[in-house]
Order: sequence, then structure tokens, then C-alpha cells
Amino acid sequence: MFLHRKETIRPVNVGEPDARFGQFLLEQFGGATGELTAALQYWVQSFHVENAAIRDMLQDIAIEEFNHLEMVGKMIAQHTSKMDQTKVYEAPLFAMKGIGPHFVDSHGSCWTAAYINEGGNVVRDLRANIAAEAGARQTYEALIKRTDDPGTIEALTHLLTREITHANMFMKALDAMGKLDDPYFGNIEPDETVSIVFNLSQGEDSRGPWNKAPFEYIADPGPQGEIPPPPVNPDDEQAKVKGTKAA
Amino acid sequence: MFLHRKETIRPVNVGEPDARFGQFLLEQFGGATGELTAALQYWVQSFHVENAAIRDMLQDIAIEEFNHLEMVGKMIAQHTSKMDQTKVYEAPLFAMKGIGPHFVDSHGSCWTAAYINEGGNVVRDLRANIAAEAGARQTYEALIKRTDDPGTIEALTHLLTREITHANMFMKALDAMGKLDDPYFGNIEPDETVSIVFNLSQGEDSRGPWNKAPFEYIADPGPQGEIPPPPVNPDDEQAKVKGTKAA
Amino acid sequence: MFLHRKETIRPVNVGEPDARFGQFLLEQFGGATGELTAALQYWVQSFHVENAAIRDMLQDIAIEEFNHLEMVGKMIAQHTSKMDQTKVYEAPLFAMKGIGPHFVDSHGSCWTAAYINEGGNVVRDLRANIAAEAGARQTYEALIKRTDDPGTIEALTHLLTREITHANMFMKALDAMGKLDDPYFGNIEPDETVSIVFNLSQGEDSRGPWNKAPFEYIADPGPQGEIPPPPVNPDDEQAKVKGTKAA
Amino acid sequence: MFLHRKETIRPVNVGEPDARFGQFLLEQFGGATGELTAALQYWVQSFHVENAAIRDMLQDIAIEEFNHLEMVGKMIAQHTSKMDQTKVYEAPLFAMKGIGPHFVDSHGSCWTAAYINEGGNVVRDLRANIAAEAGARQTYEALIKRTDDPGTIEALTHLLTREITHANMFMKALDAMGKLDDPYFGNIEPDETVSIVFNLSQGEDSRGPWNKAPFEYIADPGPQGEIPPPPVNPDDEQAKVKGTKAA
Amino acid sequence: MFLHRKETIRPVNVGEPDARFGQFLLEQFGGATGELTAALQYWVQSFHVENAAIRDMLQDIAIEEFNHLEMVGKMIAQHTSKMDQTKVYEAPLFAMKGIGPHFVDSHGSCWTAAYINEGGNVVRDLRANIAAEAGARQTYEALIKRTDDPGTIEALTHLLTREITHANMFMKALDAMGKLDDPYFGNIEPDETVSIVFNLSQGEDSRGPWNKAPFEYIADPGPQGEIPPPPVNPDDEQAKVKGTKAA
Amino acid sequence: MFLHRKETIRPVNVGEPDARFGQFLLEQFGGATGELTAALQYWVQSFHVENAAIRDMLQDIAIEEFNHLEMVGKMIAQHTSKMDQTKVYEAPLFAMKGIGPHFVDSHGSCWTAAYINEGGNVVRDLRANIAAEAGARQTYEALIKRTDDPGTIEALTHLLTREITHANMFMKALDAMGKLDDPYFGNIEPDETVSIVFNLSQGEDSRGPWNKAPFEYIADPGPQGEIPPPPVNPDDEQAKVKGTKAA
Repeated sequence: MFLHRKETIRPVNVGEPDARFGQFLLEQFGGATGELTAALQYWVQSFHVENAAIRDMLQDIAIEEFNHLEMVGKMIAQHTSKMDQTKVYEAPLFAMKGIGPHFVDSHGSCWTAAYINEGGNVVRDLRANIAAEAGARQTYEALIKRTDDPGTIEALTHLLTREITHANMFMKALDAMGKLDDPYFGNIEPDETVSIVFNLSQGEDSRGPWNKAPFEYIADPGPQGEIPPPPVNPDDEQAKVKGTKAA
Repeated sequence: MFLHRKETIRPVNVGEPDARFGQFLLEQFGGATGELTAALQYWVQSFHVENAAIRDMLQDIAIEEFNHLEMVGKMIAQHTSKMDQTKVYEAPLFAMKGIGPHFVDSHGSCWTAAYINEGGNVVRDLRANIAAEAGARQTYEALIKRTDDPGTIEALTHLLTREITHANMFMKALDAMGKLDDPYFGNIEPDETVSIVFNLSQGEDSRGPWNKAPFEYIADPGPQGEIPPPPVNPDDEQAKVKGTKAA
Repeated sequence: MFLHRKETIRPVNVGEPDARFGQFLLEQFGGATGELTAALQYWVQSFHVENAAIRDMLQDIAIEEFNHLEMVGKMIAQHTSKMDQTKVYEAPLFAMKGIGPHFVDSHGSCWTAAYINEGGNVVRDLRANIAAEAGARQTYEALIKRTDDPGTIEALTHLLTREITHANMFMKALDAMGKLDDPYFGNIEPDETVSIVFNLSQGEDSRGPWNKAPFEYIADPGPQGEIPPPPVNPDDEQAKVKGTKAA
Repeated sequence: MFLHRKETIRPVNVGEPDARFGQFLLEQFGGATGELTAALQYWVQSFHVENAAIRDMLQDIAIEEFNHLEMVGKMIAQHTSKMDQTKVYEAPLFAMKGIGPHFVDSHGSCWTAAYINEGGNVVRDLRANIAAEAGARQTYEALIKRTDDPGTIEALTHLLTREITHANMFMKALDAMGKLDDPYFGNIEPDETVSIVFNLSQGEDSRGPWNKAPFEYIADPGPQGEIPPPPVNPDDEQAKVKGTKAA
Repeated sequence: MFLHRKETIRPVNVGEPDARFGQFLLEQFGGATGELTAALQYWVQSFHVENAAIRDMLQDIAIEEFNHLEMVGKMIAQHTSKMDQTKVYEAPLFAMKGIGPHFVDSHGSCWTAAYINEGGNVVRDLRANIAAEAGARQTYEALIKRTDDPGTIEALTHLLTREITHANMFMKALDAMGKLDDPYFGNIEPDETVSIVFNLSQGEDSRGPWNKAPFEYIADPGPQGEIPPPPVNPDDEQAKVKGTKAA
Repeated sequence: MFLHRKETIRPVNVGEPDARFGQFLLEQFGGATGELTAALQYWVQSFHVENAAIRDMLQDIAIEEFNHLEMVGKMIAQHTSKMDQTKVYEAPLFAMKGIGPHFVDSHGSCWTAAYINEGGNVVRDLRANIAAEAGARQTYEALIKRTDDPGTIEALTHLLTREITHANMFMKALDAMGKLDDPYFGNIEPDETVSIVFNLSQGEDSRGPWNKAPFEYIADPGPQGEIPPPPVNPDDEQAKVKGTKAA
């Protein structure tokens, strides 16, 4: 059950209203990496995740994201509170749709549930959430760099901070399942190619931990599965992918 | 530069065509978790990722995903090759749009770039990719469970396997940057709340590695940032989040 | 500030799970007339509506809609709890995306903020809300007619009931502004055509309170504003539209 | 049957072309509140509304909205007729897509039928139409305030005027059915909670005609339907919602 | 100026209502290849096409497409007129959204202006229209093959016929400009590669009028524009592309 | 099978980076007329086109379009390589989403498969492709006119050139089937109205090869198929539409 109190979870005090910056802020209200995406993604996962402890975590964080959505909305409302003095061509979105937040991104595209990534398995859900937090953090950094208003910076920095906290929590939960550094999950056994890496984009090739042993590197792969004998790393022992059943 | 040969990277041999299952397969051709999403996401990242080795990895995997898209397309073409004998109401999508693959999901929704998650930072990109692989693997498992055709199962199992391989590669790359288990990245310092966890959804509360010490647990948070003294875990030392500058 | 308790605002007790009906229920979770649309529409209005009392009403109802969204989600989770025994072709959406609710409608289309109608003026907002309630009520009636499960019917009837209550509240608020039966609002004076009605679709023409006096009925209108002398209702006094400044 | 004459229903005479303002005008050509939405919404309703008189009204107004769409298109064509002299960055949409109108909004988002609200019941349809008219009127006001061109203002004022006329007609039709101030319609009886109002957003609470008697006000509602005894308004007689069967 | 009469341009007489087939018919009401796409595409072109005769043709055909949209809508209304006797799972879309047409395709996806192809040049527009007619014809063929109702077949055959007529008209107009078989149009001169054809997909290669002389065939193209000497067709005279300025 | 080499098919050498122009270039990366649309449209057709030679052509051109997508992406990457020196409000899309290409158009709308036109018949597919090439050519012309950078102009001119080449190839293929100037294709016979042209938009009427004999011109058509005797062109012999079976 949702309950609401008419104060934000943390104060929002915009100094000088800047409707143009308000339009940028829409990115975190109705944009792909925004708080609506996070809130709805974590919350909808809580309906199908079976583990009660993980479900509790998802709900705690989802509700916090709703609170962050409210903070971003408040910031937009404050930044558009003096639209009469704003040159209209600098914030056309609010001139057309009215002041305050709307569920569109900074370019006026409607929010869509296609932004949400969830379903079927808790490991998949938690990985999706770590990705969502990374996207949100990235946009907050972009926003912070484009304003000089101390109140706005303080609020955005808090929001960025919390994304790090949430990412940390999701990582801890994945780690508790042994799935933070194990690519495998679910019920289907991988086939014999699980350790092979194909060099399909040739030129300026690089080698690193992601395509060196224990991975088996195919330098010049061909079609129809006719995998040529690996021309490199002849001494590699049989590649093993940590965490797969084959390992 | 893209080059193409008229054989698939691995054989696709569907036994008995089943247009109804072909419609399910669209999920991995033009759906959210499908191969088009993966191919375009990794490839577009390669244009802005500065590290040449990571860029090479992204391009190698992107090209493989294009090859998987081709395999899925081939499977759909084979499954719809006997549409005349199919009861039309069992595969209405192909009856209306024609046989073979289309860039829609199994419910006929057009593929949209809103499915793609990328931009601005390589750590964010790699986390998005691990999430994408998890989603793709999940859908392949769902598909494998819904067919009895050995050729289809073999091909789908290969595709599922490769998602595990790619996830493994992305994890190895993140780990090489020290970012597989560190939530922090980018240039903005988090604020003082980075270790706090709010119990915003109350009832059936659980505690686990994601909200125990070193996290500071606020059992009954209130609005406006008036954080009450933590009623639990009084002995916890100052919480530290691994990898943040504060740590 | 949003707070949450792990019980629904009203119990949800589905009897026999029916995943196929669960797919229909998605219409009110991630569909056009669903609870997400209502919750977000009223809540986003509260950021720009200046009147504190109306704002309070919008927030009260918005939070209730979030609670209804939770109830619908719970119903879907219960209806999909025995998917293993369900013939997969009867509920393909859950087979592909996993059990439980998702932010798509009953045909798998992602929820979009294009469903939301709001902005710029409280009268416009309240009219949009009465329309939203009518759409939601209509879909609940369609759902109730398509299930025999008593627990499902009881919950859906409650949700339908509350839409009537909300519509009533919005009507009362509009009426308090004198705008329930007055088409006029805002700052722009209408021109001299405000009482004219054009018979642009001819054949089987009907007359009623919407095109009789005081409306001026143009039976055979032509282009370029060359309005012919009205051939009917010659005795009508000068038409007056209640509530316009011209009146 | 549609017929067409090559003159607009009313003259459109733009003075000085302003491609930048032309881009704003797209909001009423291919935007959410635009004439295409209105024309298609009312017209599609006419296919399922059973009452012939209401159907005639819907068709008359729908055709007028097509005529308004034509007027807006003409205005955009005139405003973009001197694109060569326009600084391209001031109207990038026309620079990319060509001069004249397109079915996108002022921010370049494609028109979508998700804007349309209709179906299943004439009361629902008419309420949706009153909301559509309010949205259109609001956008016309925003446009009128952002241009100094007398010809443009005259045409926009006419279009705004007609939205008021249409809203008036829809209200008269609803009133003739007794549904302008009655929230109830359709075949399902509401349950016993129809007169209850929940104070779910607490703080700065207000009371007004929408949550005073005959409404029953629950000041501090809890989950699971355990409705506490109402702490306020003890003298209120049993709440009655006008127009419900219970009344 | 649009005018309307309450009879369809041609009679629509559905025999036995079949709501399931009605759902298929939506493809031509609110689908990609449907009449709305055609009507709006041709009509919006008429605002920017400068040639008055072509503009007249576009408007004549656009109005006919509106009339066809009306016919398709009528067919859907007749096919859904006995929904009470229909098993609801056979036509879930109408069960959820109400009987009669809606602006969605046969899978419930909302119509979007992204289906429209137009802008900037009359040659481009006419080519887009020939493509649109071909898509519409294709879907009508698919529909005709899936019904036994004589009245439905007759109406659909008429609609298919008219698409052929329109395609013929657009071809005649293009031919009158000399652009039916000339790929070139507009103001930019092509570069020296205009006659070259790259064999980028290798294996099972074929030659035909599209890659034989006068085209210059590059059998094994490489990156960075280092075009190797053509290994085939050494006797070909200098390739010439009809209609280019270079020719 | 897709293979890749880390050089573009032709060099891309942007001179002075201009992030604002980079945003325009997105139109051909993630926009309606862009290279992704072309690449995916032709390639997906190759799965259902039965004629091996046409299939080979489609694949050759599809792969070239992937290469052009890579060139456009490279141009955008180069144009956004000095974002730090760019005034942020001049290229807000990259400021929010990061430098380099993204699968959105120049106004930030996500690419959607609704842009693709294909299915069911090779004639329909080839006509769709000629239309796609015309749209791409048109946008390249718009782009070339809006930059002064020689390297950018050279690359864009090459891309424009290749669209002409592809259009030429598609025309040659259609011509080889006898379908370049024949509107008819498929299996359904048109009805008796195939040569009739309706003058549905009246005023400033024009006559041309598209509505003169052998077309039968109905100057004043009425509803319900009651076609009046043609008042003009009494001497026209029976109209014939070239290429129809009736001819």
C-alpha cells in the first residue's frame, strides 16, 4: 500500500529558475534513464521475485525511486516557475505543454515502458537494475556539469549518490547468490562453444582477459560452424568458464 | 567495413515447420531482448568507447550478434515455409505480413531503439551489456522450453550459450577495470548518504548483505531529509562503500 | 514523500488462476485506460496546479491509483501463478516475458506517456481526469463480464466503484469553479462564430440540444467562411453560449 | 462519403512567414492535442455509437476538425514558404523533412493513435471529447500568445473558438442523457465504498465539495481494507452519490 | 474543405459477422499498409507539392482513401455487430476496446505517423506513393484469401482494385516527368561511383540487369575505397546511368 | 555470415567538428530515411524473396547500407569529438546522451521498425525499396546544403550517389519482371472500376496523363457507387490499364 506525505524525502531548493535547464531535467523525469524507469522496473520485479528478502529490497529501492521522481519533478517545477520572463524559444516544450514536469524526455519523446528491462528470473532482474543505475548515474553527471545553481547541484548530487548506493545493494545481492562474477544462471546447459571467442571484426585486434585463455580464440572464423583449428594460444589448457556446469 | 557470406555462422536445420512457434521466435528477432538489440547496442558503443581493446571486443561481439540475428531469421523462415498448410489463426502475424522474419516481437510490436541502453561511459555500457545478455538468455530458455524440434533446440541452445560467453567477456572486461564489484564510476563525488539504506517499504522486512553493515539502515525514514538516529545496528562502525572516494 | 506498506489497500483473493484472463488484466496495468495512466496523470498535474486544495485532491486520488495499480498487479501475479499447468498458447505473453505483471497492455504494446492528458490549466486537467475515469470504468466493466471467479469480480468491482467515486470528486471540483457545464475557460475571447453549428455531414441529419437554438445551425455550409444565411430556425434569437464572455 | 473542395472552410492569411512559429504550429497538426486527434477520435466513435442523433453530431464535428486540420496545415505551409531566407537552426525540422506540414508534433515526435480516447460506451466517448476539446483550446491559447502576426492570430482564435463550441455541444449532449454531472454509467453496480474518500496524501490537507459530506472522509486510511471509523464529520448523514443506483 | 455524406462511396454488405476476421481487417484501418496511412500521406504531400496538376491528383486520391477508410471501418463495424455470440477469446481486441474499428493494427499496435513517407520533393513523394499502394494491395490479397463471405470479398476486391488504379496514376505522373525509369532527381550531382556495383554478399552470386554492364561490377570489394580493378566484364564500355547528368 | 574489418568502405574525413551538424546527421543514422532503415529493410526481404538472383542483389545492397551506416556513425563521432568546446545548448542531444552516434533521429525520436516497408511479394518489396532510396537521397541533399565542410560534403555526396545507384538497380530488377510501369501484380483480379478516376477534390481541377483517357474520368462522383454517366471525354474508347489481366 502506497502512502504519501506532502514533503519531499529531501529538500529541493532551486536558486535562479532556468527553464532551459528544466528541459534538460526532463531526461530524469520522463527519459530513458530517469527515475520513472527505475521506480517501475524495480517495483514490477517485486511481483514475480520469489525470494522475500530480495523482494523487500526491490520494494525499498523502488519506493525511494518514486521519491526521487518527486524530487526531480519539484526541481522542474521550480525551474519553470518564471516562464513569463523566459525567452520562449529557449524552453519551447514548456511553452507548448505548460510549466512543470511532464512524462517526456528532454527532446519531447514520451516515456515508454520499452525502457524497462525485467522478467522471468531474479538474476536477470538484478543485472538489469545495475545497468539501470549506471545509466541514471551517467545522466546525473551530465546534468551536474551543465548547471551552476548550488541548490540544483546539491539535489542532483544526492540523486547521483543514491544510484551508487542502489547499485552497491544490487551487487551485494547478486554476490550473495554467487552471480556477480558468474555469467551462468537458469536451467539450460550451454553447449561446447561456451569458451570460444570469435575474432569477427578484424584489424587493430586486441587481446585482453576477455579473449585470452581460458577462452579459446578463433582468429579467423568462417561460416557454417566450420571452426578452424585455433592458430593462437596452442598451449592453452581446455578453456573453462567459471560457474558454468561444464566447468 | 561489413562483409557477408551466404552461409550462416552455424547451421540452422529446422525439422517440422511450426509457424506458431515461428511467431514466438520473433521475440529474438525484433523483440526487446533480441539479437537486433544486442548487435546495435554493442556496435553503437564502439563509436564512442575510447579504449581500443574494449572497442575491439565490442565490435567482435556485435558482429557475432548480427550473425545470430541471421540465424534466428533463418529459423523463422524455415518455420513459416509451410504456411499454406497452417491454420491461419495460429500464426496471424505471418498471414498478414507475409512469411519469414519481420522486425516486430512475438506480439507484433515494432522494434524500437528505446530497447537500447548505452552512452557516455564505458562502465555504464558494459553494465548495460551484461544486462542485455541476461535478458537474451532468459528468452532463449523460454523458447527452448516451448519446442520439441531437435534442430530448433540445438540452434537455440547455441544462441543461449553464446550469451553466456558474451556475458563472461563483459564481466572480464569490467573486472579488468576494477568495476565488476565496485558501484562507483565517473567524475562526481557522492555525498554523505552513500552508505545509508532506507526501509521505505515496511512489513515483512528482511535484512541481508545489501542492507546490513557496513550499510547504515534507517528503519523508519521520514520526509525532508530529517534522518532519524538509526534505531538498529548501533555498533556498526562508520559504513564504507567499497570503491567510492570516501572509502 | 512516498511510503509503502506490504499489504494492499484492499485484499485481492483470486480463486482459480487463469493466465489467459491475466493477460486481459494487463489492460488495466500497462494499458491506455489502466491505473498507471491515472496515477501518473493526476500526480504530474499536482506539480503545476496552483490551487492547494485541488492539488491535495489530485494527490489523494493519485496515491489511491498507485494502490489500485498494486491490486491489479497482485491479481495478475495470482492468475499467472500456475503457468506450468497452463497451455502455453493461451497466455503467450507470460510464456515469453515471465509470470506476473508487465507494463504492456493485453496485446503486448508497451505503456506510453502518450496516454496521459494534462498541462497548462486546471480546468483542462480536471476534464481530462473525468475522461480518464470513464475509460477506466469502461474497461473494468469489460473485464468483469469476462470472468466467473468471485474473488476477481469482487476486486474488479471495487476498482470500478472507485473510478466512479473519483469521477464524482472531479465533477464536484469542476462544479465549484463553475466549469462543469461551461465550455469556456482561459484567457482568450472566442470570436463571433462561437454559437454556430455546421451541418458538415449530410444525410440522416438530426437535431438536438447540441445544434438547436440558441445554437445557430448552418444547414449547408460552404468553404472560405462565406457562411450562407441560415435556412432554418429563422426565429432563433441571437445564440448565446453560456459562460462565454460574449454571453 | 468524403468530398472535398479546394478552398479552406475559412480563409488563412499568414502575414510574415516565420518558420520557427510554423514548428510550434505542428503541435496542432501532428501533436497530442491537435486536430488530427480530434477528427479521428470523433469520427471513429461514430462507427460504434448506436444513437443516430449523437452519431450525426459526432460526424458533423469530426468533419469540421478535418477542416481545421486543413487550416493548420495551410498556416504551416505559409509560415515555411520562405525557408531559404530562414536561418536553418531556427527551424531544423523543416530543414530536414521539407517545408509544409508533417504529422509530427513541435518536437518532432510522430503522431500516434495512443492519443485517441474512445470505445465501448457513448458516455465515455463524450467525456473523452470534452477533454480533447479542453486540451486543444489550451494549446491554441499557448500558440496565440507566441505570435504577433494578425492573420495567424485571427485564424488561431477562430480555431480556439470552435473548440469551445464543440465542448458546448458535447456538454449539451451529455446533459440530455443526464450524465453531465452524474459520474455513474454502464451496467455494473458500484460497491459500498462509492461515497468514501481516502486522505492518502497527508500534510496540507484541504477539504472541499469533493471530500466533504455527503462523501465519507477517511483521514488516516490503512491497508487491507481495514477502514478505521471516520474520525471527522461524525454528523454526516449517509453519503449518497447522485445518480448511482444505490442513491 | 472537407464535406461528408452519410453513405459510403460504395456499398458494404457483410454477410455473416465474424469478429475474428474483423480483427484482421484492422490491418487496413489502423495498420501500416492501411487506408489511414495512404489518405494522410497523399493529403499532406498536397501542402508542399508546387505543381497544381499533381496537387489536384494527390487530393483526389487522398479523398478517395478517406472514403476507403470509411468502407473498411464499416466492414469492421458489421463484422463485430454480433460480439455477444462470439467466443471472447477469438476477438479479444474488441472485447477489451469495444466493437467497431479502432486505430490499431490486427495485433493491437497503435497507428503511428512513422508509417508515412513524404517530404521535400515531388519525385520522392510519388515513389513513396507507389510503394504505399503496393503494400496496401498486398494486404488486401492476404485478407481476401482468408474469408469466404461474398460481400466482404466484393468490397475488398474493390479496394484492392483501386490501389492498382492509384498506382497506375502515380506511375503515369512520374512518367510524365521522365522519372519512372530514371533513378536521378534533385539538385546534387552524383560522384564517379554512380555506375559501380559491389558484390558485398558473397556466395551464390548472381548477375542480372541490375549488376551487369553498363554497371561496373566489383567482385571483391575492400575497405577504404581502395577499389580493385574490376576482374570481370573487361569489355564493358564506360557504364552510364540513364538520366544522371554524367550520362 | 557477417564479417567485419576495422576500416570504413570509404574514407570519412571531417574537417572542423560541428556538433550541431552532427545532430542533423542523426537523421541518416537513426532517422526514418536513414541507413539503418535501408539496411534492415533490404536484408529482411532477402529471407522471404524466392528468386535467388534478386535475393543476392538485396543482400549485396543491404550490406552496403550497413557500411554506409558505419560511415555516417563515423562522421557523427568526428563531429562530436570536441564537445567540450561546444556551447552545450547547440547540441543538447549529445550533452545528454553522450558523444557519438545514437539510434535516434535529429529530434531525438528513437528509431522504430515502423519505418520499414516489406513483406509478402517481391514486387511490393522492390517498390518499397525505390521509395526508400528516394527518401534517403532527399535527406542527403538537405544535409549537403547545410554544411560547408569539404570532407563532410564529399562523404555525403558519395552516400547520395550510392542511393541513386541502388534505385537504378531496383528499377532494373523491376523492369526485368515487367513491373516497372505496370501497376498490377499478385493473384487477385481487379474489378470493373480499375480504369475509373474520381474527381473527389473539386476546384482548380487539372487533367493529365493520370486522369485522361484511357482512364474514365468521373467529374462529379456520388456515394454508394451510383456512378453517374461520365460528363466529359465522351469519345474515349474503353479505358485500359496496361498490364492488368483485363488488358
